[in-house]
Amino acid sequence: MHRPRPSLGTLLHHIHVSGPLSRATLAERMGVNRSTILGLTAELVAAGLVTEEHPAGTTGAGRPSLVVRPSPHVFVLAFDVAVDRITAARVGLGGPVLDRRSAERTRTGADLDTVVRKLACLGRELLAEAPPGAVCVGVGASYCGMIRPGDGMVRYGPATGWVDQAFGAELARALDIGRPVAVGNEAHLGAMAEYERGAGVGVPDLIYLHGDVGVGGGILVGGKLLGGDGGYGCEVGHMLVNPVDGRTCLCGSQGCLEAETGEYALLAAAGRVPGPIGAEAVRAVVRDARSGDPTAAAAVAEIGDWLGIGVANLINLFNPGVVIFGGMLRDVYTAAAPQVAARIDRHAMPVSRERARLRVSALAEDATLIGAADLGFAALVADPLLQLT
Amino acid sequence: MHRPRPSLGTLLHHIHVSGPLSRATLAERMGVNRSTILGLTAELVAAGLVTEEHPAGTTGAGRPSLVVRPSPHVFVLAFDVAVDRITAARVGLGGPVLDRRSAERTRTGADLDTVVRKLACLGRELLAEAPPGAVCVGVGASYCGMIRPGDGMVRYGPATGWVDQAFGAELARALDIGRPVAVGNEAHLGAMAEYERGAGVGVPDLIYLHGDVGVGGGILVGGKLLGGDGGYGCEVGHMLVNPVDGRTCLCGSQGCLEAETGEYALLAAAGRVPGPIGAEAVRAVVRDARSGDPTAAAAVAEIGDWLGIGVANLINLFNPGVVIFGGMLRDVYTAAAPQVAARIDRHAMPVSRERARLRVSALAEDATLIGAADLGFAALVADPLLQLT
Repeated sequence: MHRPRPSLGTLLHHIHVSGPLSRATLAERMGVNRSTILGLTAELVAAGLVTEEHPAGTTGAGRPSLVVRPSPHVFVLAFDVAVDRITAARVGLGGPVLDRRSAERTRTGADLDTVVRKLACLGRELLAEAPPGAVCVGVGASYCGMIRPGDGMVRYGPATGWVDQAFGAELARALDIGRPVAVGNEAHLGAMAEYERGAGVGVPDLIYLHGDVGVGGGILVGGKLLGGDGGYGCEVGHMLVNPVDGRTCLCGSQGCLEAETGEYALLAAAGRVPGPIGAEAVRAVVRDARSGDPTAAAAVAEIGDWLGIGVANLINLFNPGVVIFGGMLRDVYTAAAPQVAARIDRHAMPVSRERARLRVSALAEDATLIGAADLGFAALVADPLLQLT
Repeated sequence: MHRPRPSLGTLLHHIHVSGPLSRATLAERMGVNRSTILGLTAELVAAGLVTEEHPAGTTGAGRPSLVVRPSPHVFVLAFDVAVDRITAARVGLGGPVLDRRSAERTRTGADLDTVVRKLACLGRELLAEAPPGAVCVGVGASYCGMIRPGDGMVRYGPATGWVDQAFGAELARALDIGRPVAVGNEAHLGAMAEYERGAGVGVPDLIYLHGDVGVGGGILVGGKLLGGDGGYGCEVGHMLVNPVDGRTCLCGSQGCLEAETGEYALLAAAGRVPGPIGAEAVRAVVRDARSGDPTAAAAVAEIGDWLGIGVANLINLFNPGVVIFGGMLRDVYTAAAPQVAARIDRHAMPVSRERARLRVSALAEDATLIGAADLGFAALVADPLLQLT
């Protein structure tokens, strides 16, 4: 009978998150002695998950600690369903994006079958072109909506119009490679990815805000994603900040943070509705604001003002060590940092704001995709030898 | 050398939270066999912390499981500093309030020395009148403001005007019984108390809202108090819900939940400013609203509307299993439940609101005091034999 070995998983997790590490560093981080590390790495080498080699540039003097590296042959398929675009990628152990395919997505007519068929098609292309000997160990997907934990059911996806759609199960069926598809909300996955290897490393109380058409949130409390009773917490975008005369939100409410700071709010404030929509349209407003266009600058300032109110609320509620702006909010925050800072100064409690850092996503466009890949790797990392038994 | 024994503490915790339990129930809850329970209770009996007795009404047939009871001699001093009133109590192991003293507090001139002197005076009265053989094992205090974890420093207490005042240390010095004073925020303590023995038993994702002059929050995520980076999270009262034309808040901001739903907002909406203030004035408005006074009814509905917006935001952010209304919000919520429910229906995401129950505090006036007592018991429960070594 197979029994999971937590220490094997811990070692593999360190290698997956940090990349190549010496045996000495691993021993120190795991608080075990070198002979334990030697035994564990031997098992992972035998399983084809890591390799060991002498560090570059070492000379004869002393006995250098061998370096343990993630195997270049082990990968997952990672999918990212955003509002305007779907992406599939092969992501290696250790986090590198090895290969990727994207397709534009039209905002209308995005029924489950169409999206799943396109994703599966991209995924199979990637698998077909993987080098000989490469092994797919899992599949993860990021989705722009509310996901039921455990089975990848989309409970509510305003951007695709999905309610209770079995996205994870259908994608697994369409891919047909004998692996389940683990699905997570895009902002939740972005938060985890930034915590593991981005702008939030070492900061267990972390808020990640993801701007697409809407605004999503991923909130870590003590290093764990805030799930709540059913796994549907973190809905930052639907925090009401302007109930009296706010803009109508996609969710049917009025004055939600997403309605005041999302793509449509910015384009409308800049007088560009009707007109082109999407990430490029948002970037154009930000660019014009920086070049001195007064209407664009006023629009960015107005959206920054609301964003600052939202962040001040989150600082008061969560006392985070860092707030990270991801997706299109990277551009918006960079341009509107003074407004955001002014609102935080005015509305956040001094003892909470004194240590809250504000950062843009370090993983940038790839935050949610890397988060999806980590979801795909989760089973392997939890129990590295399971797949071999 | 003394070594803590986690299982002893676990057993004492069960007895403290649940009251008398049979050895059989303890064995089942702790997942150990009866002989282990026998050994542990023998140690706790020897330490004077519990007693054992035959259950009432058992007859000769079979061998009934002995009942383990908290010792009636073991107590803590618990203090509660609210806006209008200070309270001191002797609270027994198992949670009963054995004795109490209260004093009105004037809202102005509440300097640290005065408050500490009064509290210490009440505490010493209680100690002097404790029955022979009673043993004080700890001291806990609840305070209506932001507390630094670890040392009981008040970082910000708008209701007393305190900033960075060493409340815990000064109260310990004034009491002078050789024990530290553990201090917590009133709403944090209320949340823990409702989770342990009130309206939130068994619901690890819980929000407790405490109305005094302001509105405080205690939020449990996965059964743990949300602390955040420095322990200053949960500031629900300063979540902005009406930044455009909201009322000015004591914190200097505008449109905070507390400014829209606190005592002053209700009295002003009812046309009773200037006039008497305090808990009794709030209850009078609620009473008049129920008796058909249209101005009072409109005021309660208006405040309920804002309260509902705040709760909808919290449901979206935390996906709680229960939201508990405590302090004066018990009265307000009871009278304004339709407005609160309507706002939640309109603004909270369906998948999150479907399982969020709304309840009034089961511990009522004593929620924060019981929370303070549990803080006082914490060291004993963590390590029951420590004080004897």
